[in-house]
Amino acid sequence: MADGTEGRLYAQATARLKGLIENGTLAAGDRLPSVREYARLQAIGVNTVLRAYRILEDQGYLETRPQSGHFVRRRQPQPAKDLRIPEVSDKALSVDVDSLATRVFEAFRRPNVLPLGAACPPSSIMPWRALSRHLVSAVRQSGADSLGYYLPPGYEPLLRQLARRSLAWGCALSARDFVITSGCSEALNLCLMAVAGPGDVIAVESPAYFGALQMIENLGMKVMEMPMHPRKGMSLDALEEALKHVRIKACIASPNFQNPVGSLMSDADKERLVRLLSKAGIPLIEDDTFGDLAYEGKRPRVAKSFDRDGNVQLCSSFSKTLAPGYRVGWVAGGRFHERLLRLKTTSSMGSAVPTQMAVASFLEDGGYEHHLRRLRTLFASQAGQYREAVLRHFPAGTRVSRPQGGHVLWVEMPEAADALRLFDQALKRGISVAPGSIFSPGGRYRNFIRLNCGVPWSDKVGEALATLGKLAGE
Amino acid sequence: MADGTEGRLYAQATARLKGLIENGTLAAGDRLPSVREYARLQAIGVNTVLRAYRILEDQGYLETRPQSGHFVRRRQPQPAKDLRIPEVSDKALSVDVDSLATRVFEAFRRPNVLPLGAACPPSSIMPWRALSRHLVSAVRQSGADSLGYYLPPGYEPLLRQLARRSLAWGCALSARDFVITSGCSEALNLCLMAVAGPGDVIAVESPAYFGALQMIENLGMKVMEMPMHPRKGMSLDALEEALKHVRIKACIASPNFQNPVGSLMSDADKERLVRLLSKAGIPLIEDDTFGDLAYEGKRPRVAKSFDRDGNVQLCSSFSKTLAPGYRVGWVAGGRFHERLLRLKTTSSMGSAVPTQMAVASFLEDGGYEHHLRRLRTLFASQAGQYREAVLRHFPAGTRVSRPQGGHVLWVEMPEAADALRLFDQALKRGISVAPGSIFSPGGRYRNFIRLNCGVPWSDKVGEALATLGKLAGE
Repeated sequence: MADGTEGRLYAQATARLKGLIENGTLAAGDRLPSVREYARLQAIGVNTVLRAYRILEDQGYLETRPQSGHFVRRRQPQPAKDLRIPEVSDKALSVDVDSLATRVFEAFRRPNVLPLGAACPPSSIMPWRALSRHLVSAVRQSGADSLGYYLPPGYEPLLRQLARRSLAWGCALSARDFVITSGCSEALNLCLMAVAGPGDVIAVESPAYFGALQMIENLGMKVMEMPMHPRKGMSLDALEEALKHVRIKACIASPNFQNPVGSLMSDADKERLVRLLSKAGIPLIEDDTFGDLAYEGKRPRVAKSFDRDGNVQLCSSFSKTLAPGYRVGWVAGGRFHERLLRLKTTSSMGSAVPTQMAVASFLEDGGYEHHLRRLRTLFASQAGQYREAVLRHFPAGTRVSRPQGGHVLWVEMPEAADALRLFDQALKRGISVAPGSIFSPGGRYRNFIRLNCGVPWSDKVGEALATLGKLAGE
Repeated sequence: MADGTEGRLYAQATARLKGLIENGTLAAGDRLPSVREYARLQAIGVNTVLRAYRILEDQGYLETRPQSGHFVRRRQPQPAKDLRIPEVSDKALSVDVDSLATRVFEAFRRPNVLPLGAACPPSSIMPWRALSRHLVSAVRQSGADSLGYYLPPGYEPLLRQLARRSLAWGCALSARDFVITSGCSEALNLCLMAVAGPGDVIAVESPAYFGALQMIENLGMKVMEMPMHPRKGMSLDALEEALKHVRIKACIASPNFQNPVGSLMSDADKERLVRLLSKAGIPLIEDDTFGDLAYEGKRPRVAKSFDRDGNVQLCSSFSKTLAPGYRVGWVAGGRFHERLLRLKTTSSMGSAVPTQMAVASFLEDGGYEHHLRRLRTLFASQAGQYREAVLRHFPAGTRVSRPQGGHVLWVEMPEAADALRLFDQALKRGISVAPGSIFSPGGRYRNFIRLNCGVPWSDKVGEALATLGKLAGE
């Protein structure tokens, strides 16, 4: 709790000061109040102010003059440019990312590697004590039942908790609308299997979550890439155009905090997306993996909340917010529910029961919202810190995404940079990154990397980003 | 422990007395020693003898004359006939069992139904206290690690335990040969996806485990059925012949205690099966789900133990022996290992970690072999009890499999019987059975049912079997 509050206050203080500088209230050369004075004025802790001053100094807004205090720098940092909107092929493409992605995954598995490649927050920032306690008491209370099958759709109290949570997503789903899966991965995989077969074309975002591309490849399907606006999400004009010319079988999209770009689609666009696909009779597979991790404001609605005819299959999990290793995800499959239920039953006979029990019990207990607040503040602050460090250390011309939620950054290096070489070189130095080319078929994004900013900031992280920046410039 | 020993002694006593009657040492009309006397002579408990006498009476070997004692009956029961070897089509067939199997599964899910349909032993006979204890201590000891991903292949200590156990299967696999899956279902599904695609023909046993048929159907594949000898397993002559005429892409077989027939293939036949398929370049998917549950003698070898070129993918799980709800299974995929690893990674990103930890810890502790001995004795005795009850209550002409391991019986009713009607009628009376037609495409086995004899014998079970017999005769 202290951590969450402090993180929030610090982020607020940083943003406020940045605002004062940017709107000229604090002009170049001005001396800032002393740390103690500012803390008193704002009624916040000295450490909070210290931290805020330090990050503003790191970001080039302030400079420290020995014995004199903190001053607004004369040359403010240039506002970083947005990522460019990618050009994509107007043809369906075969996918060929699995081999490379497997190499990348092997790097994620290695011990003693700083995991800036995996989009996986470390367990240390998860409420592992509370979750373990819930797991233990659930197993004890249920006795022999914790060993028995709960055939799909899954453990009933968990289904009910999901139904309750769906109100926050803008839906009003019932327990009967869900199937529990082994994480969002299995949910997406089942959805693809439910609606398409080998040779079929799936519309995807470009860049796309590479795990989805691997599934598509392994299922023998093809993709049609849709360009992404770096902050608004998939281009719906491009999708509308593609629907006229290409026989698309399904569409996968992540309107909330897309991985890797971090974009957030507006509600109006979500509604347009859902209507467009519904009218064309093309199922939408919505990946809401990061939906609970907004940096600011309310939890965004899901596209599914605009679904009138069951055409949207909503997939998500607790892997980014509670426990990746519990493998608790779900799908609310609309008109495909029965088919998904069967596929889940035949392909794995249900998910592990004790971890479903633990998550259900944790949710019932009411600790999830509080934990989310802490996590969102933490990720917001870290995204800023990582972002500034990348802009400082990477070669001139590097652009970084401005995610609005989640915990990944998408880094566009100058055209000459080779992300695959960077991946190899970084791994030799004990750092993993995700090279851009696994986020698209056909070799796009060779000068991009994705960074996991879920790893708590430390000197080691700072040094790793400096190392990456240096390697990127070579 | 007491239970296991008593179960074994009782089964031994029953078998010994049956032998004495069958070889004429005890002739028709002979009076048996009193319960007390026989207990003293054999140095076993009075209750054990009582139980043995009672079951022999149930089976028609003995009769009790009030005030006089137990006598060998004049008319011994006819030795029941073996199941017939089925005739199968010589063409590849589309599979269409999923709809019906889903209806059957829904029955398994209902509360307050005696689960004689599901091939799932009840959790009450599993070592749930010990497993829960291992789960709790594993979660406590690993701290935050129990929340983190263990990407495929899976939790290392569990992989090492499997490698050690593989010696008992006649193999010497290493930890690196395995991928942990969500039960054997996921293992089989991944194997099918690894080696075949839509339209491909899979050679299967007839009758086959219906879960495998559902997967094949959902993956758009076809089957070629091979007749099963009721005690020796898949007809290899039929397979050899089929390989000459049909383009078969893979073969699924269960040499050890096949579900539903309970047959055990000889080692010579296992070797022939492996050679035959290897020579033809056709992968063998071996389902060893029930391999640990031999009624007598040593744990049988797996066909994989004859594999020289990595052509065999061995699949199994702890679902029938420890904890179905933990979803801990595995595949040792031979030359398909890398492909399986990728498919597992992309389709579900690994299995739940805490349950893998619990099973690994349980195995390390050394309690598994002891538990298996208890379970095998129990299932052997129950298979006999269920079998005799079916022969007693079902219409004349009914035949029952003589399983050599596992905990299911395959019941062949007279031709006029309608298993699907029996399924519906039984369900109305709170009893589930598995109707034969889900074990084969194309409507075979309409007069068969599979019974789960893993449910501990009780008056309720006895009455249920009497009810089923009555319904079957209607």
